[in-house]
Amino acid sequence: MKWAARHSEDEMVSFATLLAAAARGETLKRFRRAGDVVNKASSGFDPVTEADRAAEAAMRRLIEASYPQHGVTGEEYPDRPSDGSCCWSLDPIDGTRSFICGIPTWTTLIALLDEGSPVLGLIDAPALEELYVGHGSSALVLKQGEAARLETSDCSRVGQARLSTTDPFLFGGADAEAFERVRTLSRTVRYGHDAYAYARLAAGTIDLVVEAGLKPHDYNALIPVVRASGGVIGNWLGEDDFSDGKIVAAATAGLFQETVGLLRA
Amino acid sequence: MKWAARHSEDEMVSFATLLAAAARGETLKRFRRAGDVVNKASSGFDPVTEADRAAEAAMRRLIEASYPQHGVTGEEYPDRPSDGSCCWSLDPIDGTRSFICGIPTWTTLIALLDEGSPVLGLIDAPALEELYVGHGSSALVLKQGEAARLETSDCSRVGQARLSTTDPFLFGGADAEAFERVRTLSRTVRYGHDAYAYARLAAGTIDLVVEAGLKPHDYNALIPVVRASGGVIGNWLGEDDFSDGKIVAAATAGLFQETVGLLRA
Repeated sequence: MKWAARHSEDEMVSFATLLAAAARGETLKRFRRAGDVVNKASSGFDPVTEADRAAEAAMRRLIEASYPQHGVTGEEYPDRPSDGSCCWSLDPIDGTRSFICGIPTWTTLIALLDEGSPVLGLIDAPALEELYVGHGSSALVLKQGEAARLETSDCSRVGQARLSTTDPFLFGGADAEAFERVRTLSRTVRYGHDAYAYARLAAGTIDLVVEAGLKPHDYNALIPVVRASGGVIGNWLGEDDFSDGKIVAAATAGLFQETVGLLRA
Repeated sequence: MKWAARHSEDEMVSFATLLAAAARGETLKRFRRAGDVVNKASSGFDPVTEADRAAEAAMRRLIEASYPQHGVTGEEYPDRPSDGSCCWSLDPIDGTRSFICGIPTWTTLIALLDEGSPVLGLIDAPALEELYVGHGSSALVLKQGEAARLETSDCSRVGQARLSTTDPFLFGGADAEAFERVRTLSRTVRYGHDAYAYARLAAGTIDLVVEAGLKPHDYNALIPVVRASGGVIGNWLGEDDFSDGKIVAAATAGLFQETVGLLRA
């Protein structure tokens, strides 16, 4: 059964906004404060702050209280199965490195999945007071109480594109070479903005994002926001399948196709 | 003659804050609006926005009206010589790439030079409503009307350091190898924050910045802010000479010395 048959879109958008507010209550007070940083992986740097855990727990409590039949999948805690078609995908702090460096572009990601497909996405940037919401063909940013429609740029060539990616050193082997073909052709590159880059793509100030290594809680919320604002998002082969974590998001179909061609070459 | 003999520090801090407000009036209204982007260099990407020029012009008008005997050196217009010891160094938009990508961490840089040495520095981040001010041993950040003292972290080892630099691809040859020695040892790296990285170093959330290719209007304002907040700033040889544009800024003297050692190795 489709989500719209069970809940109105407005009801789900309102509830997702409540989830974002609950997460914000836990994250923002810990931002730029010294806190516990735990290494998630024994090798490499993958911090989890207290804020990350508290924010996901706060969102889970709200979902369990209001929609106990909905499933939940998140970064910090085990999955809770759905007994219907609806499941929430939560990433309490996307951009943990920015968070611990006091850079305000970290976000909270919230998506509603309908039979596994994301139908509603929120990208909340609490330290910037910017909330990006996309579902169907509706895409809005709420900034300090004012709403504005999101629309991607009309950029259709990699040579004109403002490109963003997490870190140039994250790509391995052939992926690194493929990314280099896009990077060297692009107009300019920004690094390390994680999901916030997709928010700015939706808002028309970044044209292209190319990344690898994303997990479902990283990309689920981005898909409805990018699509509702007129952008195109898929994998490096140009397909609508995100399971390998290799993502291209582009302002226009032409830019998407040229990028996919360069990545394949 | 020393600046303090001619003007009180409070008078100069107040006036520099007025300069920042004048620049903000020109930059902020053009941020995230489509505007003229002119290629300054025929090769490569070095945009100059209308905002850049209007903001520097606004600051120059204020200086000429209030302190006509002061010199001015800026990014956009020819130098105006000083008939005394005082000269203002202006960078209306540091982080032009972030500005045109809609990323809010661009800044306006204002420094007062006394016989060529920066004695007062302002790093203003208008889109974040954060103003960082340093002179002597006083370092403050003003955020949305509230002032807080700036203090660098106590990080003393590169292995623990949150590192920032503009772009890993900007370093050439031996500089690239030297930077790699620091990067691979550091705890985490952030890219592309330009002067805002030094502001966050002063605020204790970034520990180390290593860059090359900086010009006087890029670094003059940073020096008093970093030093007044307890940090150490010098060139890659550990000296107090910035003329080659290769800068190391560190939260502590120990971290500065270890970094300089790695860069020299």
